[in-house]
Parts: sequence; structure tokens; C-alpha cells
Amino acid sequence: MIKYPMPKKRPSKQKVSVKNRGMTFEKLIDDANNYYREHDIANVHKKPIPIQIVNVDYPSRQKARIKEAYYRTPSTTDYNGIYKGHYIDFDVKESRNKTSFPLKNIHGHQINHLQSVHHHGGIAFLLVYLHSEDMTYLLTYPTLETFINREHNGGRKSITIEEIKEHGYPIKEAFLPRIDYIKAVDAYIKEITQKV
Amino acid sequence: MIKYPMPKKRPSKQKVSVKNRGMTFEKLIDDANNYYREHDIANVHKKPIPIQIVNVDYPSRQKARIKEAYYRTPSTTDYNGIYKGHYIDFDVKESRNKTSFPLKNIHGHQINHLQSVHHHGGIAFLLVYLHSEDMTYLLTYPTLETFINREHNGGRKSITIEEIKEHGYPIKEAFLPRIDYIKAVDAYIKEITQKV
Repeated sequence: MIKYPMPKKRPSKQKVSVKNRGMTFEKLIDDANNYYREHDIANVHKKPIPIQIVNVDYPSRQKARIKEAYYRTPSTTDYNGIYKGHYIDFDVKESRNKTSFPLKNIHGHQINHLQSVHHHGGIAFLLVYLHSEDMTYLLTYPTLETFINREHNGGRKSITIEEIKEHGYPIKEAFLPRIDYIKAVDAYIKEITQKV
Repeated sequence: MIKYPMPKKRPSKQKVSVKNRGMTFEKLIDDANNYYREHDIANVHKKPIPIQIVNVDYPSRQKARIKEAYYRTPSTTDYNGIYKGHYIDFDVKESRNKTSFPLKNIHGHQINHLQSVHHHGGIAFLLVYLHSEDMTYLLTYPTLETFINREHNGGRKSITIEEIKEHGYPIKEAFLPRIDYIKAVDAYIKEITQKV
């Protein structure tokens, strides 16, 4: 996309999408979580990256300096917390593919963890940002499972964009927070509790 | 304590306490969580330690080596997860003090986080191992709060051992897992749900 110099407009009139702002999708989810905590809506945190520490230097008691460490493979998803008494657990994904979201983007340990959370009565899902659509969808674990099972049974190794739009909860961009994903969580909780 | 050479006995006859095995209390809680996950009882994890990464070396794509990093102050507790549909969140403490557990052992960010979890309908608590008693107690957030309020109102800056024994849920050492804390969580959930 060619970026022409824009005439000055009032910001409220201009749509500033995830795409155009060059922010990472994860950063927007962190912003949403900060907003939810500050406004006492939910308590959701991103987990720190697991690190294997090998060598630490202690020049002073207060300032330990890690001199050698390695990244470890996480055994869970990146985000969890509590909302309206529900345990919520999810991972964040982006896809630049114009036709489908490849299932290989979701690691085995993430699927196993989401399955376990769902089994124990938690709210397990993915937040998927589709670059081609400039839209975010909440994909519940049970929905994801149907596509994983399809692959296991010899079917396609991806979820089509049309399937995500059909089965996911759409998350329209808002003002504050930009990705107000908790509304989609609400819709999912409503669907579950109505079934019971 | 003087360690005499012990005559050989069948292990099952001999009480091997947290104290005598020289294991850290946190390690025993990690063991319990592994047991709960393997037996599909609960899904609880310890969060990784937050690290500020400053410098990383990439000798190869697979083997990134962190060359400079620093410990960051966590903003939450160390453990959270799901049990029977409940969000559970806690921190693990030890006290070698023979008469009381000093409240300064619990950091401000931990208290704020537990308060928030409790407010959103989660199960928030501390697991406290008292070396002098060789016993572990589950101290619920509402109980902890009463002692924090007492301090704020000019009262003592600690919880006495007697108060912990009176108000905490005792966790007797078992065989597998050694610190079967989920039974105390059960008792707490039962107390809450009976109140409603």
C-alpha cells in the first residue's frame, strides 16, 4: 500500500485499524487486558516467557545480572485469568494467508492445554487476527476441535477464512480498548450457559 | 537437629516430612500440580519468572542464547489454574518463625492480585508451610484480609501460629502427592458454596 501524506482530519472520523497502525496484535491484547484490570472488568495476564537460566552474576544484592539463559518451550497458552467467576485461557494468533488459517500455527501443547481447560470447565479459545480481512475472531476450543478432528480424519490442514467467519465470534475494533475481546467471551459464556 | 544414621526400615512405615527431606516447599507444590495434571484432577501451573531480556545472541536459528537479562518484579502470584470449573490463584510461603508469620512476607502486589481474584469470583489463598509445626495450612484471602486490616488499624504486623492453626485449613502430608492441597481447596469451595 502506498502511503500518501494524509490531510489533517479529526481523529474520530478516521478509522485506524490494527493493520494500519503497525502495532502487533499481541500488544493490542495486552492493552485490552490492562484496560480490563484498570476498570475492574477482568483480571487477565500474559504469562512471562519461560527461560532456562544457566549463569547469573551478582555484582550486588539488588542487581542480579543473568549472563547465560535460553528460551524454553512453553507448556501452556500465553494468556489466562478470571472474568465474572470464569477461568479464561487463550492464545493469540495472526494469519496473513488470504484464504485459510493453517492448523500447524497452533502447537500441540497449546491444543492439549486448551482441551484440558475446557474439560475442567474453563473458557478456552483462540483470538485470531486475519490480516486479509482486518478482523479479529474468537474461535472457541470446541469449534477448533472439530477442525483438528477433520484434519486427523484426513481432511484439510487448515481452517478456511469463510469457516472462521461462519463459526467464530467477530470482534469489531472499538475505541477503548481497541480489541474489546471480552464482549465475544460474554457471547460465548451466554451460549454455554443457555445450553445447560 | 542431629542426624543419626537411621536403621533401614520399610519406607512405608517411616514418616518422611517436608522438613526432613530437605526439599523446598515450592518443589512439593510443583509435584502436586504435576500429579493433578497427570491424573486430570486440576490444571494448575507455576508461572515463569518474569525476565527483562536485554541482549540475545543468535548463533543459529534454533539456539538463541540470552547474554544479558534481569529479573523483574512479578505483578501477580506464582500459581494459577482451574479446578472443577473454579479459577484458583495462590502463592506459596514458608515461615521459620516459631511464634508468628510476619505479614511483610506477603508483597503488596500479591495482596492486590489476590484481592482482585477474590473480587472476580476466584478462589484466592496462600499455602503456608510452618517449619516449627512441620505443617501446611491453606489461608484464604478473606482470612488474610482480616489480619492485614488489623495491621492497618494499628494492630500486630504478623499472624500468630495459633491464629493460622485456628483459621487456616490444615493440609496433612500424604503419600501421593505429599502436599495434597486440593483437598483443602475443596473444603474452602464447600464453605463458600454453602454460604450462598
